[in-house]
Amino acid sequence: MKFNKNETYIFALGGLGEVGKNMYVFMHNDEIIITDAGVIFPGSELMGIDYVIPDVTFLKQNESKIKGLFITHGHEDHIGGVPFLLSEVNIPAIYAPNQAAALIRKKLEDRKIKYNDLFVYNENSVYKFKEMWVEFYRTTHSIPDSHGIVIHTPDGVIMTTGDFKFDLTPIGPMADIWKIARLGSSGVTLLLSDSTNAMNGGISNSESKVDNALEELFNKHDSRIIIATFASNIYRLKHIVDTCKRHGRKIAVFGRSMENNIEISIEGGYIKHKEIFITPEEATSLPSNKVCLLCTGTQGEPLAALSRLANGTFRHIKLRSDDVVVFSSSAIPGNALGISRTINKLYLKGITVYTNTSLSDIHASGHANEEELKWMIRLAKPKYFMPFHGEYRMLKRHADIAIRCDIPAENTFVLSNGDVLSMKKGVIKKAGHILAGETYVDGNRIGEVSNLVMKDRKIMANDGIVVMIANIDAQNKQLLANPNIITRGFVLVNDNLDLLKKLEFISKEAIMNKIKTGASYADIKLEVINNLSSYINLHTGRKPIILPVIMSIKKDVKI
Amino acid sequence: MKFNKNETYIFALGGLGEVGKNMYVFMHNDEIIITDAGVIFPGSELMGIDYVIPDVTFLKQNESKIKGLFITHGHEDHIGGVPFLLSEVNIPAIYAPNQAAALIRKKLEDRKIKYNDLFVYNENSVYKFKEMWVEFYRTTHSIPDSHGIVIHTPDGVIMTTGDFKFDLTPIGPMADIWKIARLGSSGVTLLLSDSTNAMNGGISNSESKVDNALEELFNKHDSRIIIATFASNIYRLKHIVDTCKRHGRKIAVFGRSMENNIEISIEGGYIKHKEIFITPEEATSLPSNKVCLLCTGTQGEPLAALSRLANGTFRHIKLRSDDVVVFSSSAIPGNALGISRTINKLYLKGITVYTNTSLSDIHASGHANEEELKWMIRLAKPKYFMPFHGEYRMLKRHADIAIRCDIPAENTFVLSNGDVLSMKKGVIKKAGHILAGETYVDGNRIGEVSNLVMKDRKIMANDGIVVMIANIDAQNKQLLANPNIITRGFVLVNDNLDLLKKLEFISKEAIMNKIKTGASYADIKLEVINNLSSYINLHTGRKPIILPVIMSIKKDVKI
Repeated sequence: MKFNKNETYIFALGGLGEVGKNMYVFMHNDEIIITDAGVIFPGSELMGIDYVIPDVTFLKQNESKIKGLFITHGHEDHIGGVPFLLSEVNIPAIYAPNQAAALIRKKLEDRKIKYNDLFVYNENSVYKFKEMWVEFYRTTHSIPDSHGIVIHTPDGVIMTTGDFKFDLTPIGPMADIWKIARLGSSGVTLLLSDSTNAMNGGISNSESKVDNALEELFNKHDSRIIIATFASNIYRLKHIVDTCKRHGRKIAVFGRSMENNIEISIEGGYIKHKEIFITPEEATSLPSNKVCLLCTGTQGEPLAALSRLANGTFRHIKLRSDDVVVFSSSAIPGNALGISRTINKLYLKGITVYTNTSLSDIHASGHANEEELKWMIRLAKPKYFMPFHGEYRMLKRHADIAIRCDIPAENTFVLSNGDVLSMKKGVIKKAGHILAGETYVDGNRIGEVSNLVMKDRKIMANDGIVVMIANIDAQNKQLLANPNIITRGFVLVNDNLDLLKKLEFISKEAIMNKIKTGASYADIKLEVINNLSSYINLHTGRKPIILPVIMSIKKDVKI
Repeated sequence: MKFNKNETYIFALGGLGEVGKNMYVFMHNDEIIITDAGVIFPGSELMGIDYVIPDVTFLKQNESKIKGLFITHGHEDHIGGVPFLLSEVNIPAIYAPNQAAALIRKKLEDRKIKYNDLFVYNENSVYKFKEMWVEFYRTTHSIPDSHGIVIHTPDGVIMTTGDFKFDLTPIGPMADIWKIARLGSSGVTLLLSDSTNAMNGGISNSESKVDNALEELFNKHDSRIIIATFASNIYRLKHIVDTCKRHGRKIAVFGRSMENNIEISIEGGYIKHKEIFITPEEATSLPSNKVCLLCTGTQGEPLAALSRLANGTFRHIKLRSDDVVVFSSSAIPGNALGISRTINKLYLKGITVYTNTSLSDIHASGHANEEELKWMIRLAKPKYFMPFHGEYRMLKRHADIAIRCDIPAENTFVLSNGDVLSMKKGVIKKAGHILAGETYVDGNRIGEVSNLVMKDRKIMANDGIVVMIANIDAQNKQLLANPNIITRGFVLVNDNLDLLKKLEFISKEAIMNKIKTGASYADIKLEVINNLSSYINLHTGRKPIILPVIMSIKKDVKI
């Protein structure tokens, strides 16, 4: 699409229609401001992919215009894409609040990326560019130093919330409701607001209530307490540390992300009592009522610390029937199965388990529910409203909430990544669409995993793989032995020896028929694939990946 | 107590330890500002008393200092005392918002009180006096034109809320949350905030939800709909009128306070569709689905319209089994019995009844619940906090809420009427106490009902009265006939003829013994009282009021 002079353009490269990989772009003439650079942790349909990040082709093409990347807070879905973005696009400066900056610094160090233009902003910072300028307001979220970002343009004021909730009895500082009101009074043209919990009515739990609930649990139990929580919820970790301090318990930490977050939070001063942390070995030598184990794995992830504890695969620590396990967390949709698997294992050991369904105050979300979203809309009283951070049903619900708060329906925009809004002298319209796809990251290699690979992985996950290995004498056009059939994830071999024999036979026939005609290896393979797949599909209803490997023994060349 | 120069004093003449008769006084040197002048509707222990208003002795004594009475909104517990105040104290000016001014004007006209200094303020008005000045901010409550009042003094800023809730989807205009935040940012020394619903957790129902609930009821039922609601809830009346308009129903109104409020609201433009109102006679001639009856009596008051409808004592309208009765209200504590009596009568007639326990969205309170109170405290962020409008348990709970919102416990004041705070250069302390009693109003007569009368009424309510009438010939010192005993509320006469005969006998003995000695009438009466009361108390355990009446027949003089 065409971008006009003297108009402001607003679009998302990620974060619409999904919870994650947030990245928003604000462009006016030759200036681009980016907010956030997140990843999304792929669902199980993306096998072997570690992250998905936004496709940043647009930014590459407009590299010279970029003034800076502004970070709202230090969660992965807002900063996880930074190393990959830096490796692809020249970013002149990154502005982040203290805790996020520390996390980004660690991230870059871990990947040995040198970057000298990471600056720490605070709620009073102001950054002025040629025609746009940026300011901030403090918000409440589950990590300290969360901020909303306000972008002032010649065409109007754009207010973005980042992730937020309104907690009137917060553990950290209050959100700057006064500055939000002041911005609202002076005129906000467009509000982009967090839709993560827009489906939840009423108000979110206060983090203070979690504090009380934890205190009660610690009063009630003298046994060892194991707490699983989100490694990213710094306030929760702070609670737990403070509660353990009061109750004279030492803490052993399990899970690398948890260790990292605690380390950075201690450095930043958000968590005190460094001396409270002990090693798992030390934990075993203390009485039960002097120990708390803090671990990852709230979602029942098979490789996370809690699952490994439940499975008994930690060397130093074994769970006991008098242990108390607390899930200070909520279930992320889709994870119910994994979580109940873990809980069942714990029950089998006779362990007492608390979750947010048995004890509602043991967790508080970091995102605003409906009534808090209304407060944001009312305080900011924008002319236009664009819900962000969320799946479409959440964005839609959030837009409906805004309409009930007197935003005209035609002034609300439920958009997809890449949909572009134009703002000219305070009037906003849909202007077109730019490319905003996904980039897959496998380990640290960016962009190497194509959609084709993803498709293969998906097929294998569903129907498995059948490998046929045949040794031939290429010069004499002879099959040297019966083909060998190896399968994975297809059928149980011992129960299906006849089927496998039949597949060997079909392969042999196909190869021998083709080899005589002087067909190319490719033709031979195609024949094997066709014959095997039609037989397999007919007799098993499955469509595994069929991988013929033909080896020429004479020349010892693998084809 | 002594009031010093160059200090500001703050106290309540009514409204603390009770819900009603609100009146607050702010004094600095020779200036007094009063906010609100309410009545309280007495509980059943105050027999025959129509209202209780604050004792205004302090204001009489300091009449020359009074600069004006500022009214927050037009409910009786905030304006009901105005006529009585004007008859006792010279008030140079009353400042009230539009709807409240109209209601006060009507009140004064009804009582034929001439008063030319009633001024209408709006949210932008400012009134400056020598050292104090007053401004306002718009709030949401169940009556239009509700405001908070801010009093600026040389010693600090005092913010009062009046009655309020935060409704983010209100029927009328939004509360001015931006101005409250601005005041908070610029520094509030003391916040006085509405405690009526401080015992209720979470947030109050939005008035918009009531709108939806009413709409559903009207969609569901084709029969006649009778709605009982608070006459003072103007927004609710507006809903009902608008809903009837959409559904083609005419409205007949029952209850004088309801009629008054509707009339004034139509004049003020708050309620439209004047033509929708019909007389009860006209209502009988229309089909069921074209009629709505709107009436008072939500609290089961025996003389209110709904009770009379339920009892069948209205001439023109009788309830029928296919009627639908809606209580768009909540039970005020203490009225449960009267309400269930009314509901039972309705059920006996086979009528369908909706209340806020069977259909929660059919009512919304006009007062803030806990979470809204937190918002007010957070936005205003006062240095000191004083809960007002409420019984002590409500004030105490509200103070606890403030403490959780970071107001230091020692900066919160749970006070009684008459307790005086002093404020000097931004520092507030308890300073003493002034007289702040109650004045009883019986009909329109102020102050004529003494505490003694109240005591009598109380005794009669508990144990009844025994009247003894004796005719004597004073000159000849003779009893002319057996004394006559009349009782009310004492014992069932037919079941206790022996007791009454005995009382006659005791009276006769007492009179005859005394009359011979030439005793005065007073002595004779005392003897009768003593003898009767000791016998009655011994034989019945009761202590009725004993009223001897001695008549001298010869002279035909009643003593």
